[in-house]
Amino acid sequence: MKKVTITTILGIAALSLASSAVAQVKPEEQIKFRKAAYSFASWNMGKIKANLEGTYDAAQVKAAANAIAAVASSGLGALFSPGTEKSIGEQKTSVKPELFQKGDVVAKMAGDFAAASNELVKAADSGDVAAIKAAHGKVGTTCKSCHDEFKLR
Amino acid sequence: MKKVTITTILGIAALSLASSAVAQVKPEEQIKFRKAAYSFASWNMGKIKANLEGTYDAAQVKAAANAIAAVASSGLGALFSPGTEKSIGEQKTSVKPELFQKGDVVAKMAGDFAAASNELVKAADSGDVAAIKAAHGKVGTTCKSCHDEFKLR
Repeated sequence: MKKVTITTILGIAALSLASSAVAQVKPEEQIKFRKAAYSFASWNMGKIKANLEGTYDAAQVKAAANAIAAVASSGLGALFSPGTEKSIGEQKTSVKPELFQKGDVVAKMAGDFAAASNELVKAADSGDVAAIKAAHGKVGTTCKSCHDEFKLR
Repeated sequence: MKKVTITTILGIAALSLASSAVAQVKPEEQIKFRKAAYSFASWNMGKIKANLEGTYDAAQVKAAANAIAAVASSGLGALFSPGTEKSIGEQKTSVKPELFQKGDVVAKMAGDFAAASNELVKAADSGDVAAIKAAHGKVGTTCKSCHDEFKLR
């Protein structure tokens, strides 16, 4: 069991740029911050969707793509330390405890999210709306694949 | 009263890249998303602080600076529409209602936050730790000035 936990930590740390400094964030704050990060990304995904379906504002789409990529590259793994598997007081989490036993799967998913987000930034910079739509869809797929596996409904 | 509201909306919209698409976010979601955005920025500010006080990880500081700038440039003004002055159900807000009457002041503060964040990105890219420390302090000052004026304690 201990081995699994260490593997998980290493798996997540590999993609998180985790440092000892970051590890000092309290468990309840880790839950708060990770929810905030995904929520902020979600808002920006929604903005791009709305632009694709309505009036297209290139500057807004670029800013939103950058925001999503910034979330994906922010080292979120550091916010999934042991002790954050369950809600803590008012900080509710909808993560499945399995996430903490599947470091390799999580690392792969987080890497896919970061890679897809970087592609979205490139597409947004190019201004090619069809490419942006495709790249936005791919980011959405990386969100969904993690939610399907690791988010409680 | 109507005039003041319109001025406020224009003041905030000027810095928010607001589009009609973004305006469709429900009031309670606006509160959720804006809190998430500032919370995500706060985590990244804390990471840079921890790096400056402990082991310095240049890649982490760059990513954190980018994340803060992405928040500052994400068009947060669109999340302060009329109807979001007070908590809505479970979505609590600590904003003072005065914010919604002082569009010009808010626009100035948001512009200062974005400018200071962009300077922080430049400093992080340069790798000059003294410059990063100074730029981080300036971003923190822009956070504090808005909290002092518009955040309930």
